[in-house]
Amino acid sequence: MSKSIFYHAGCPVCISAEHDIVSLAGKENVEIVHLGSDNSRIAEAENAGVKSVPALVTKNGNVLHINYGASIEEVKG
Amino acid sequence: MSKSIFYHAGCPVCISAEHDIVSLAGKENVEIVHLGSDNSRIAEAENAGVKSVPALVTKNGNVLHINYGASIEEVKG
Repeated sequence: MSKSIFYHAGCPVCISAEHDIVSLAGKENVEIVHLGSDNSRIAEAENAGVKSVPALVTKNGNVLHINYGASIEEVKG
Repeated sequence: MSKSIFYHAGCPVCISAEHDIVSLAGKENVEIVHLGSDNSRIAEAENAGVKSVPALVTKNGNVLHINYGASIEEVKG
């Protein structure tokens, strides 16, 4: 994986964390995935270990769950 | 505030997140504070809005609580 991936679901907590992470890591180093509008990637996020959003999966595969916004189950709706 | 500040308390979850954050943001951009060994800074962390560790306070003052390790109350002991 060449970039970190930031998974979110459009909630206010998510958007705020997205800005912080992008500002921290640099826009070119983070792929942003909106699971609400691209739910084909929910399985990918789950396989990576994402339990709630917002979450950042780092290049080496670690999952950082940030300020709790919503569980993956809630995102599935 | 010229740097982000990463507060932790030495727990395994903290150390792992520390490595991830430093690798993401660059060592020169993050100050690492170990509240277990430097408890004079607990009040500063609380004032910044830190409720649990590990947490990152960004340059603009936002608090990102990452993978829950321990509450501030637990750090106070």
